[in-house]
Amino acid sequence: MNIEFINGGVTAPKGFLASGVHCGIRKNKTKKDLALIFCETECDVAAVYTQNLVYGAPITVTRNNIADGKARAVICNSGIANTCNADGVEKAEMMCELAAKELNIKPTDFVVASTGVIGQPIDIEPIKKGMPQLVKELSADGSDSAAQAIMTTDTVKKEFAVEFTLGGKKCKIGAISKGSGMIHPNMATMLGFITTDANISSNMLKKALLEAVKDSFNMLSVDGDTSTNDTVAVLASGLCENERIESENEDYFIFLSALNSICEKLVKLMAKDGEGATKLVECQVSGAKTVEIAKTCAKAVICSSLVKAAMFGADANWGRILCALGYSGADIDVNKVDVSFKSKGGEIAVCKNGAGIEFSEEIAKYVLVEDEIFIIVSLNDGEATATAYGCDLTYDYVKINGDYRT
Amino acid sequence: MNIEFINGGVTAPKGFLASGVHCGIRKNKTKKDLALIFCETECDVAAVYTQNLVYGAPITVTRNNIADGKARAVICNSGIANTCNADGVEKAEMMCELAAKELNIKPTDFVVASTGVIGQPIDIEPIKKGMPQLVKELSADGSDSAAQAIMTTDTVKKEFAVEFTLGGKKCKIGAISKGSGMIHPNMATMLGFITTDANISSNMLKKALLEAVKDSFNMLSVDGDTSTNDTVAVLASGLCENERIESENEDYFIFLSALNSICEKLVKLMAKDGEGATKLVECQVSGAKTVEIAKTCAKAVICSSLVKAAMFGADANWGRILCALGYSGADIDVNKVDVSFKSKGGEIAVCKNGAGIEFSEEIAKYVLVEDEIFIIVSLNDGEATATAYGCDLTYDYVKINGDYRT
Repeated sequence: MNIEFINGGVTAPKGFLASGVHCGIRKNKTKKDLALIFCETECDVAAVYTQNLVYGAPITVTRNNIADGKARAVICNSGIANTCNADGVEKAEMMCELAAKELNIKPTDFVVASTGVIGQPIDIEPIKKGMPQLVKELSADGSDSAAQAIMTTDTVKKEFAVEFTLGGKKCKIGAISKGSGMIHPNMATMLGFITTDANISSNMLKKALLEAVKDSFNMLSVDGDTSTNDTVAVLASGLCENERIESENEDYFIFLSALNSICEKLVKLMAKDGEGATKLVECQVSGAKTVEIAKTCAKAVICSSLVKAAMFGADANWGRILCALGYSGADIDVNKVDVSFKSKGGEIAVCKNGAGIEFSEEIAKYVLVEDEIFIIVSLNDGEATATAYGCDLTYDYVKINGDYRT
Repeated sequence: MNIEFINGGVTAPKGFLASGVHCGIRKNKTKKDLALIFCETECDVAAVYTQNLVYGAPITVTRNNIADGKARAVICNSGIANTCNADGVEKAEMMCELAAKELNIKPTDFVVASTGVIGQPIDIEPIKKGMPQLVKELSADGSDSAAQAIMTTDTVKKEFAVEFTLGGKKCKIGAISKGSGMIHPNMATMLGFITTDANISSNMLKKALLEAVKDSFNMLSVDGDTSTNDTVAVLASGLCENERIESENEDYFIFLSALNSICEKLVKLMAKDGEGATKLVECQVSGAKTVEIAKTCAKAVICSSLVKAAMFGADANWGRILCALGYSGADIDVNKVDVSFKSKGGEIAVCKNGAGIEFSEEIAKYVLVEDEIFIIVSLNDGEATATAYGCDLTYDYVKINGDYRT
């Protein structure tokens, strides 16, 4: 199985065009705020959403629109979340109608999404005004613009594409995503839009997506806050002409591997670009009795404010890792736990059988000043493993969120 | 029922002496690091401890020591937690033995506690050397010194006392506590030492303590990290000569009210002095179907990094409150939720029936710049209420925890 990362994003797979413009939802004219992804043909579609009881109106509309497993386009704005507004559903439907009219397709052909401030009404006028330009700019090079238009506090664009082979046919998956704060996904996360030219039924697409998010988006946390607007949608044009995937056959697992690869890349980039973050922190747990236990442990470590602050300070304060494992609720034997830190700078063991061991603070510092840190936890209690993705906690996280709305 | 706050702390009740010295566990010679509370007579005792699977060796020793419901003294150091060390229990027992010898009582008469860095071995030498001075300084004015000696990143001393009447007899409860970071109590929290001259059996004392921590210590969070060393212990000398409390009679409930009052004061002061905090944030939830739902909601709001950062910035970003309620897991109807902010500066409603309402940002700012903020959440779904205590998230939290050990 050969999965190769290539240039490009959502327009890499056959049949997809994209665009992004500044329409005026945001005051800053240099920041694009409206994105469109369009497929020349009807697609199979699947999506997963936030489990937050408070969820954005666009999610209600998208659920209805793709109930038949079919879609052709994604319309998304940034700046306003369209959540906790009395007229939210109406406005989300309007977004679909305006785009549908311009593209001459049906309003129900759309995945619709919004991201930004919760509870402020969304103004439909700029979207109406900007729509002709947005459609006019649709192009095979438009993934970059779309990726930029969905960004909020993100500092880097998230865009990837992979190429692989299904039954002799070259296939591609492309993706863009956004997410930096209010990130602690549960089932799905943030905004992620994935396209593919693989031919795969919406049922199998849903199955693959659920599988892929389990170990990627759902193992990511920036700040423990599960967003109201999390959506990951995948559209499959079928234009690469592989034999249609309708069961868990060999091609399904190749497709799933490719999807996993791209989701993992997105998630690592999102963790590293977490609000205010200076580094990616990955917690790799092994030796757990069950995968569930491994996941619970890995997430507890990644979510601990104290661990995150220590990582910011390049401080090998491993006691905080033990502390987080201890309150995680996972069934572990704390007297068997080993901990070490790893990075490009090297690897250093700091805890053995639940107790501290002597180590060089100097070497630990050398390991921890790097910008990608692995916290290696061995539970020595079984065979299961899991990895969670997070970032450090910095002054800038506080700065960004101390006054986000102004 | 008349419960009056008076001056003093753990030495306010009859029979108790206290002291605090710098013995050398900490390098900074101006910071006391060893505390002693001593009672001239045998006390009934009760304690609650952290639920973290990783817990300090002193907890193991204290559990054994007070299994008979009796104790006479508290010995506590700050600087090192004596947790995750191979010889922790041995060292904690040594602390008791050294103090017992000097006081001519039994080693098992002690509640022993430690607070500070996890995983570094504790050096018994300074404790041995400092013990004679610690005992020599025991006095009825020593509560202040003891309160200072148990502080770690705390910036203010936590010390309170109340006076009330049991069957015509004047009784007192006094307390000191420490706690600033790694605070998200579960069953008990941080270190809190409470003394009383009420005559009450250890069984009823335990009952009252469990009841009191439920709505105070267990409703507090600074950073979501449940500490490994949380202990709250209460010692009752019986010297006020009230009729011994052995059942849930009228006197029990008076005692419980007094205990509740003092715990609430400690918790508010701990929240306000949370690491880096500039303000106390209280979330008052009403109209819940059950108390459990009200508590879950109140704690979710208090624990949200995004809500905390918004409070730091005096930003009325109420969408983050709805978001936290939505992911709390509590069974609520999000379309019935009302939210307002209150402080000495006034009160302002920002959300009605789960949707934003127009409000003056200027007035909201005026309300939120105060240093004690109430987030008022009405679920309009029942009669139950709960309050949780927390603080804002600031640059200084990151600074303090970015390199705590150096």
